[in-house]
Amino acid sequence: MKARIHIYLKPGVLDPQGSAVAHSLNHLGFEEVTAARQGKLIELDLATADAEEAGARVKAMCDKLLANPVIENYDIELSA
Amino acid sequence: MKARIHIYLKPGVLDPQGSAVAHSLNHLGFEEVTAARQGKLIELDLATADAEEAGARVKAMCDKLLANPVIENYDIELSA
Repeated sequence: MKARIHIYLKPGVLDPQGSAVAHSLNHLGFEEVTAARQGKLIELDLATADAEEAGARVKAMCDKLLANPVIENYDIELSA
Repeated sequence: MKARIHIYLKPGVLDPQGSAVAHSLNHLGFEEVTAARQGKLIELDLATADAEEAGARVKAMCDKLLANPVIENYDIELSA
């Protein structure tokens, strides 16, 4: 099955990359952009069929390697 | 309204960051991971209420600044 993980900075954590994106878009004429945040997207292929077990394992992967739980939040989407 | 943009490398484009993630997860004992791809996630706050116009504008932002259409694909999710 496949897992799609979205990793964001927690609210309140400074996001200079997001600010740069918002500024650049404003400069290019997209004045409707009021804020931007940039995060990471990780897609995993998993050799397992049990969705419940896969969810727990992917959560452990996020906590151990993929996300920094001090400054980042994540959410996980599983699909067959 | 808000726009969430997922940007991936096109299939066939070398993704060393994704390979590194897959290897590291295997080393940490997550042997069920057979492949990983890493992309970008950009969230925009937009000062507009017209979903159709917002979709077209965000597509233009992706083509002009956010994605590299030669090697990257993107998809856009709009929400109120």
